[in-house]
Amino acid sequence: MIEGHGACTTVNGERVHMDPGDLLLTPGWHWHDHHHEFPGPMIWLDGLDYPLVNMLEAGFFEVYGERVQKTLVPDDLSARQFIHGQLRPTWETPHGHGSPIGNYPWRETSAAFADIADDARGSDVDGILLEYTNPWTGGPVMPTIGCRVQRLRAGFHGAAHRHVSNTVYHVIRGEGATMVDDERLDWSEHDVFAVPVWATHEHINPSNSDDAVLFSYTVEPVMRSLGLYREAPAERRA
Amino acid sequence: MIEGHGACTTVNGERVHMDPGDLLLTPGWHWHDHHHEFPGPMIWLDGLDYPLVNMLEAGFFEVYGERVQKTLVPDDLSARQFIHGQLRPTWETPHGHGSPIGNYPWRETSAAFADIADDARGSDVDGILLEYTNPWTGGPVMPTIGCRVQRLRAGFHGAAHRHVSNTVYHVIRGEGATMVDDERLDWSEHDVFAVPVWATHEHINPSNSDDAVLFSYTVEPVMRSLGLYREAPAERRA
Amino acid sequence: MIEGHGACTTVNGERVHMDPGDLLLTPGWHWHDHHHEFPGPMIWLDGLDYPLVNMLEAGFFEVYGERVQKTLVPDDLSARQFIHGQLRPTWETPHGHGSPIGNYPWRETSAAFADIADDARGSDVDGILLEYTNPWTGGPVMPTIGCRVQRLRAGFHGAAHRHVSNTVYHVIRGEGATMVDDERLDWSEHDVFAVPVWATHEHINPSNSDDAVLFSYTVEPVMRSLGLYREAPAERRA
Amino acid sequence: MIEGHGACTTVNGERVHMDPGDLLLTPGWHWHDHHHEFPGPMIWLDGLDYPLVNMLEAGFFEVYGERVQKTLVPDDLSARQFIHGQLRPTWETPHGHGSPIGNYPWRETSAAFADIADDARGSDVDGILLEYTNPWTGGPVMPTIGCRVQRLRAGFHGAAHRHVSNTVYHVIRGEGATMVDDERLDWSEHDVFAVPVWATHEHINPSNSDDAVLFSYTVEPVMRSLGLYREAPAERRA
Repeated sequence: MIEGHGACTTVNGERVHMDPGDLLLTPGWHWHDHHHEFPGPMIWLDGLDYPLVNMLEAGFFEVYGERVQKTLVPDDLSARQFIHGQLRPTWETPHGHGSPIGNYPWRETSAAFADIADDARGSDVDGILLEYTNPWTGGPVMPTIGCRVQRLRAGFHGAAHRHVSNTVYHVIRGEGATMVDDERLDWSEHDVFAVPVWATHEHINPSNSDDAVLFSYTVEPVMRSLGLYREAPAERRA
Repeated sequence: MIEGHGACTTVNGERVHMDPGDLLLTPGWHWHDHHHEFPGPMIWLDGLDYPLVNMLEAGFFEVYGERVQKTLVPDDLSARQFIHGQLRPTWETPHGHGSPIGNYPWRETSAAFADIADDARGSDVDGILLEYTNPWTGGPVMPTIGCRVQRLRAGFHGAAHRHVSNTVYHVIRGEGATMVDDERLDWSEHDVFAVPVWATHEHINPSNSDDAVLFSYTVEPVMRSLGLYREAPAERRA
Repeated sequence: MIEGHGACTTVNGERVHMDPGDLLLTPGWHWHDHHHEFPGPMIWLDGLDYPLVNMLEAGFFEVYGERVQKTLVPDDLSARQFIHGQLRPTWETPHGHGSPIGNYPWRETSAAFADIADDARGSDVDGILLEYTNPWTGGPVMPTIGCRVQRLRAGFHGAAHRHVSNTVYHVIRGEGATMVDDERLDWSEHDVFAVPVWATHEHINPSNSDDAVLFSYTVEPVMRSLGLYREAPAERRA
Repeated sequence: MIEGHGACTTVNGERVHMDPGDLLLTPGWHWHDHHHEFPGPMIWLDGLDYPLVNMLEAGFFEVYGERVQKTLVPDDLSARQFIHGQLRPTWETPHGHGSPIGNYPWRETSAAFADIADDARGSDVDGILLEYTNPWTGGPVMPTIGCRVQRLRAGFHGAAHRHVSNTVYHVIRGEGATMVDDERLDWSEHDVFAVPVWATHEHINPSNSDDAVLFSYTVEPVMRSLGLYREAPAERRA
């Protein structure tokens, strides 16, 4: 979720509200409909696995019998049940192939960053890179899409590497640049950019004072499931 | 953690602070030492897998070369890194066989209960029973011990059942009773009681107004790993 | 392997000999070179995951530094070690993402069919359908390709169904037909035919006396890994 | 199975015949009854997980309503379906927690040894040690018991080691010795001996000409499941 307030998406009978920075999931073969009853636009970035699913000829589509689906559970229940303290509601059981959580709220992501602000080691390549997980497995949120959020500290210049998976980034906060092979992509808040499969890349936050925060989603879970993932360090280009 | 303030346990170089209601883990073959530098007693309940490990003749014991181990990472880092929003720090990797979290803080458990107070369906048998999980797997915190916390609403009278696993309970809050076969165990805050393997049991919170909260630990993960777990409904005794 | 004698493929230093009906694996990123030093042609059916790997932009290719790779282990060792009696050689460890077996010999497949000739229940849809497995996991031989062999008894007319995965068939023995949606594909020994994703299909062996045997390979493991597999019964078309 | 001919065990409706060297499984909570209608004694070694199950208070026992259970499937079907060529009968599904195979016949074990007689690398400690596997998983035959068979070549003197698991051995063939800590256990055909948890041990086949073959069963799967397994090299004692 990028901008705006007051909208929600109903996913299999659960109304899921959203605020900027939230990650909402609408997994395959779940009924969903979007609602926005307040003034002003709502803007979000849709990360879809359509290209993959279409290539595999595995897509199905069904129109709900009525204009609006009924709500079956209290609003935002899935996040409230699953988001706190690595606690699992024992009366729920997995259904489908991914995370049961409708919304990973920015409030929690922000608390995670705040709590490890200066203490966490992080990754040479990606800084403080956190992966949204499926609480049933500890793995990616969906079999076909992995979602992440990373904080690049002021002055961070990541090591370069490349891997067999592509990634789409959205800039939540800050200004910086990403080298993609020999091209420099300068980015600032709300920009979207992509790093293709096997392209060498490195992230730079040139600020003296301000963090940058990037949300991203990637096909890496697919590559790992199929035994195709590989990764290699590379020479910095900047 | 039952009572007191100001103590900590160092586990493999991480100082883990504790407050009442927190769940601390000191997994097998991790160096650990306890510290308490403030006035007043600290009281906790130790849930050990010694009986099992001893039966299996699988116990090892080693004395650290010095009186106090060095701290190697910032205080409480593991919880801060893993406890928020089902986010996984990507630069950490599993070591050992259980959860990497030193402390599951009561603050988070309390937030979980508050967030689903009246909305969650819960279990007929156990009410709002939450399982502390290992973020690497979504499973129990250790291969030999599962930890849980449950809220019994005012007036809750659980269905009876029995299962191939025993459980030790600690009353965090409230007053109530548990039928264990034909025996009624009345309990109140800070009591500890146990339900043996295959004993029929049901929990009762007779209060008109107040919730009860029970922490528990169980050998159920062992029974499940070995294919010995089974469960059956039973007739209520109260 | 369809026809001929005397050839072998060297896979990562192991010479793997082949006879008609054998299934050989040359997994991704394993050196391999083919040898045929005897008279007469060798004919086999190559089942590749190139289309998938190319779509995912995950393909790598490397030419070996010399014309012929050295042999590093005794000929046919992998099959000899892994193919008997569900016994696992404890000194071997998994490498790569698939089966360690270079050749699933027809001799064993034939023994399997002989041993369950008239006793096995089989599948309404597929008759005596056996899946070649990866001994490390019990799952498919590769993450991207599943391989199977099935015996259709004389007079077998399978139930119709469809599923999210396509399959390529090779007729090892016999004569029969497969309905693919409304098209009837008549087949006999050495024919190759395909059933596309989600096409309704049913197999028929009209013979009064002779079995038919079909080898097949399928993208089903991909669909299952990605949570895209589904299957439905259908009305017979013949 | 040690000695004799003509007996069988019925396990959940399948009559399983046995010959010397065969490994039969009668998993927990499967009906079983033994039959021997031929002259001469039948002798086998029973490897039970009772001590463990009793310690865990997880044992159940039920008497079948009649003297002899009915046969429900053709004789020896499970072995015939699962034992050849790492092929999986696709119409069967797992039930219970272990291997579906009633009998791992000596005929197959013998073929495995013959096929890798002089080519297999083997283990420094254990020679040609093969593990009987559960075809559904590639893991041990039961969650509580692992079964193995090993060939010690003429003149083999294994490296010494110790591990957190105990093992019971039966000598199928040959003469030799096993050092258990500082005690030398000389053994010959049909002997049974045990190596306790964490005891240093090494196997010796002093023959100039003849192999020795040992069957063994171990609690190692339990130790591994519970995260208690460890292993260390040791100094030879002989």
